[in-house]
Amino acid sequence: MFGAIEAGGTKMVCGIGMETGEIIRHTSIPTTTPEETMARIFEFFAGESIEALGVGTFGPVDLDPDSDTYGHITTTPKVRWANYPLYETLKSHFGVPVILDTDVNGAAFGEMKFGGAKDVSSCVYMTVGTGIGAGAVIDGELVHGMGHPEMGHILVRRHPSDDSNGVCPYHGDCLEGLASGPAIEARSGVKGHLLDETDETWDIEADYLAQALMNFALIIAPQRIILGGGVMKQQHVFPKVREAFKEKLNGYIQNQYVDNVETYIVPPTLGDFAGLKGALALAIYKEDIHHARR
Amino acid sequence: MFGAIEAGGTKMVCGIGMETGEIIRHTSIPTTTPEETMARIFEFFAGESIEALGVGTFGPVDLDPDSDTYGHITTTPKVRWANYPLYETLKSHFGVPVILDTDVNGAAFGEMKFGGAKDVSSCVYMTVGTGIGAGAVIDGELVHGMGHPEMGHILVRRHPSDDSNGVCPYHGDCLEGLASGPAIEARSGVKGHLLDETDETWDIEADYLAQALMNFALIIAPQRIILGGGVMKQQHVFPKVREAFKEKLNGYIQNQYVDNVETYIVPPTLGDFAGLKGALALAIYKEDIHHARR
Repeated sequence: MFGAIEAGGTKMVCGIGMETGEIIRHTSIPTTTPEETMARIFEFFAGESIEALGVGTFGPVDLDPDSDTYGHITTTPKVRWANYPLYETLKSHFGVPVILDTDVNGAAFGEMKFGGAKDVSSCVYMTVGTGIGAGAVIDGELVHGMGHPEMGHILVRRHPSDDSNGVCPYHGDCLEGLASGPAIEARSGVKGHLLDETDETWDIEADYLAQALMNFALIIAPQRIILGGGVMKQQHVFPKVREAFKEKLNGYIQNQYVDNVETYIVPPTLGDFAGLKGALALAIYKEDIHHARR
Repeated sequence: MFGAIEAGGTKMVCGIGMETGEIIRHTSIPTTTPEETMARIFEFFAGESIEALGVGTFGPVDLDPDSDTYGHITTTPKVRWANYPLYETLKSHFGVPVILDTDVNGAAFGEMKFGGAKDVSSCVYMTVGTGIGAGAVIDGELVHGMGHPEMGHILVRRHPSDDSNGVCPYHGDCLEGLASGPAIEARSGVKGHLLDETDETWDIEADYLAQALMNFALIIAPQRIILGGGVMKQQHVFPKVREAFKEKLNGYIQNQYVDNVETYIVPPTLGDFAGLKGALALAIYKEDIHHARR
């Protein structure tokens, strides 16, 4: 048995699962104070014998194995969690390997092991919701360099019909600033799910997402791109994104993956369990890097 | 002893080197017809006993290990080399493992093993010259997904003072279309090395390069970025690129790497030997993936 936690800013989803990827039981705990939330997490796992614990967490989180604050939540606006030693707290409570990564890296890894990227060796998982984030798996390994990727903040070109300001507090009109849920609402005055499918906002949205996917395809060359998150529950956006992606790339990359754009840019197959199964996959397949290096 | 070939569109640099990275002897052969060029390469290596051969090649090149045309140069405008079976030709002649990668992946790997990225575990190497290309090493491994990255063609935002068309035959005003050597010449009417340091073209150039580096930093989070190629021999461009990079990122990533931008964005330390030493590093440290999988 393995433990899994999808640690989010509004809720913590906890589960016990098996090597096959099957979740045996799970629960959802609201994210309040660290003390209260962690106590309820420990309660869920009480009496269970787990070999390892996988955690896909909200962030930003320090994932530099050489850092003294490895596994700390860092500068989150959720002030009670700022600088919280998540890794150490879990590690000292459970006494088993704890494999910590970002929520999106977890989701990317889960789709690779149990979901829509099982048949390939590289993928990008991008979530488009309140924020935009993405994780990448290359040759079966999660991409980490100086920390975790922050793909939501890449620069995109303005769509000619878009005169909104962009909502990113750091960059204004970066990808997240122009294409996240709040950006859609800022532009159109209503939440995305209330907008008609024919609203021009969706063409603008597809244009920005396609620019990001083109850059991902050129920079890390994933064999599949999975788009999840609240905004992507609007299934009608997928064909628009695929069309814009093909148009922008203009035949520059041609291979069995990109040529079949319907299977190249896809929704998650793990659905609402993507995060939890991703954390489970971390527990099963990854090493506790920090522990090993100490 | 190991063999190394930096296979370029205008010349082939061949070398014999040691595990330490030292090149014992080397030569440069003009790239003419495949028959003539390969005969001269074989002549250079005649009588040498090499354990493996590393090759950093121009492209595009098929690097999909499952492809029937693995190691073929594909759609190059150098028509005599189009569809040339480079890997097979070398493999059958030398009978040793042949490790083939792109020139920029080779250079990135060489800087990682013998050069300016020896002290870190991830880097991007970008060359800015007749074209723009980049290679990436993450956790010591070269990034390959559905093929090799084609980072030169990512999308950038127009600099407000730039009304040039962009020279990329595929995308017009992608990064390569706006920031390669020919793009500089198309914009200013003269070759870059003839332009004064104070010419506004350099501010435009730095802006585009900084956008690309920001996207690399956010997408693959390398611990160091190395900029080589003919255009980057203009050393005065480096401070401009660093300044623009910091300004655009606006403090969003803060860590020991990015905070010290003078050591984050740097010239190659292997100089004119970057390509050859990169090929040597491939021979020493990498496996012949294609051979192993057959």
